[in-house]
Amino acid sequence: MALPASVRIVEVGPRDGLQNEKTIIPTAAKIELVDRLSATGLQTIEATSFVSPKWVPQLADAAQVYAGIHRSPGVRYPVLVPNEQGYERARAAGADEIAVFTAASEAFNKANINATIDESLARFAPVLARAAADGIPVRGYVSTVLGCPYQGEVPVADVVRVAQALHAMGCYEISLGDTIGIGTPGKARTMLRAVAEAVPMPALAVHFHDTYGQALANILACLEEGVAVVDAAVSGTGGCPYAKGATGNVASEDVAYMLQGMGIETGIDLAALSDTGRWLAALLGRDTGSKVTRARTAS
Amino acid sequence: MALPASVRIVEVGPRDGLQNEKTIIPTAAKIELVDRLSATGLQTIEATSFVSPKWVPQLADAAQVYAGIHRSPGVRYPVLVPNEQGYERARAAGADEIAVFTAASEAFNKANINATIDESLARFAPVLARAAADGIPVRGYVSTVLGCPYQGEVPVADVVRVAQALHAMGCYEISLGDTIGIGTPGKARTMLRAVAEAVPMPALAVHFHDTYGQALANILACLEEGVAVVDAAVSGTGGCPYAKGATGNVASEDVAYMLQGMGIETGIDLAALSDTGRWLAALLGRDTGSKVTRARTAS
Repeated sequence: MALPASVRIVEVGPRDGLQNEKTIIPTAAKIELVDRLSATGLQTIEATSFVSPKWVPQLADAAQVYAGIHRSPGVRYPVLVPNEQGYERARAAGADEIAVFTAASEAFNKANINATIDESLARFAPVLARAAADGIPVRGYVSTVLGCPYQGEVPVADVVRVAQALHAMGCYEISLGDTIGIGTPGKARTMLRAVAEAVPMPALAVHFHDTYGQALANILACLEEGVAVVDAAVSGTGGCPYAKGATGNVASEDVAYMLQGMGIETGIDLAALSDTGRWLAALLGRDTGSKVTRARTAS
Repeated sequence: MALPASVRIVEVGPRDGLQNEKTIIPTAAKIELVDRLSATGLQTIEATSFVSPKWVPQLADAAQVYAGIHRSPGVRYPVLVPNEQGYERARAAGADEIAVFTAASEAFNKANINATIDESLARFAPVLARAAADGIPVRGYVSTVLGCPYQGEVPVADVVRVAQALHAMGCYEISLGDTIGIGTPGKARTMLRAVAEAVPMPALAVHFHDTYGQALANILACLEEGVAVVDAAVSGTGGCPYAKGATGNVASEDVAYMLQGMGIETGIDLAALSDTGRWLAALLGRDTGSKVTRARTAS
């Protein structure tokens, strides 16, 4: 087992976290969140989403948020984009990196965006072509990689096919997401290993939700396979609207604590990150989803 | 990495869980808890503690609890015993397996039982001699194996020395406990590997608290090292009175979910275990500490 010497945490709280929280925080607070995160040493912060406000009212102020954040040198601020219209809005707001989102489950895609997997990939083609022409890097999300709330099991071959397609279409990094947090380390390892045969490991990231408490163990198994990019959301915000009881993304603080404890470089100031998580939880009127932050607060 | 084909979960909820909960549940409820756990397929259930009620008022009714439980064939019901007097009380109550408890940290032992490590070991000598004469198996706990609330770092050599001493004194199994839940997978692995050079792996168990959210990842790392006995408490009850914010033992449900997902045999009926955890949390008037139980309840 050769663990990576350093790991990049992709902070998805301002997007994947906030879009699934009941409480909508003010635009100024969203801007402050990104700015606070920028000061923690994080290298990538997914700042917002240009999905239609009809679907994600929590992030209807995406353009204002993006205009308001103070970009820190060396930090990247991708935004989620669903289609060409979203791409245009993102570009108009000044975004210089985007992310696209699909699923490895046909049933999930059907329910979530009313499209087959192939149709969703076809929708991205013009977005990716324009991004390539504009010199805009694109990150690709594959969700439901370890299970689907509708169809249950998701064949590993389907995950491989979708990840490979996104990579072939030009995504520089593919984030493999256990959207409903149902996976366990053996399955996570098997899935990642299969995908890594089709897409080089340095182009892969993992994205776990902690619904069944398995996220850190799954991340550990994936680190052992050589993955060096891990998605997480400060304070463990978010969830999945299609999976009741989903307790959100794995908390960035808890991932950073584990990595630092293992001597893996993250560049992150854990105290600053944890303070930001505590501040955000108070703003959302919920308990923090980070055990590290809870322990630090209590002691 | 050769993962074990089967793992025995040692359920410590009725002892390590309840002794650190603020709410004291009635004797009948403690008996019902053990009886419910007996029906889940667990092979070992630490039923109570014969530490003086002066120190652990939560378990002052140990003798009544032990007299009241219905022993299931094939299930073992050890009890914690601090000294010879406790041994006599436990034996009078009918206990046929005991456990003794010390720490790898001098500072913790001093604060917790006002003795040096060597003094605490000396106190166990007559207990272990009597147990051997009576044919009573003894389990040994070593706490603070990855850190101490008083002295901070705990040298691995101290953990090895204490584990080896307990094993040499006749303990058939040594449970290595991260009492304050501060450890991370690399340190857990290094510690276990060092101890396993002095005490055979089949005689070792791991015991993690989830204070910093690291318990399952730590358990995974230890499984990869070959450990096949894992302590856990249903509903994640407990904590450590000496470490604020301690969120309790790792939840048995979450450990069982991970093991079953990895194809590792536990013999446990997860639904029955989770139902018991939900029932116990309601009785204690607290949220369950098990994410699996939370997800099952919400869905």
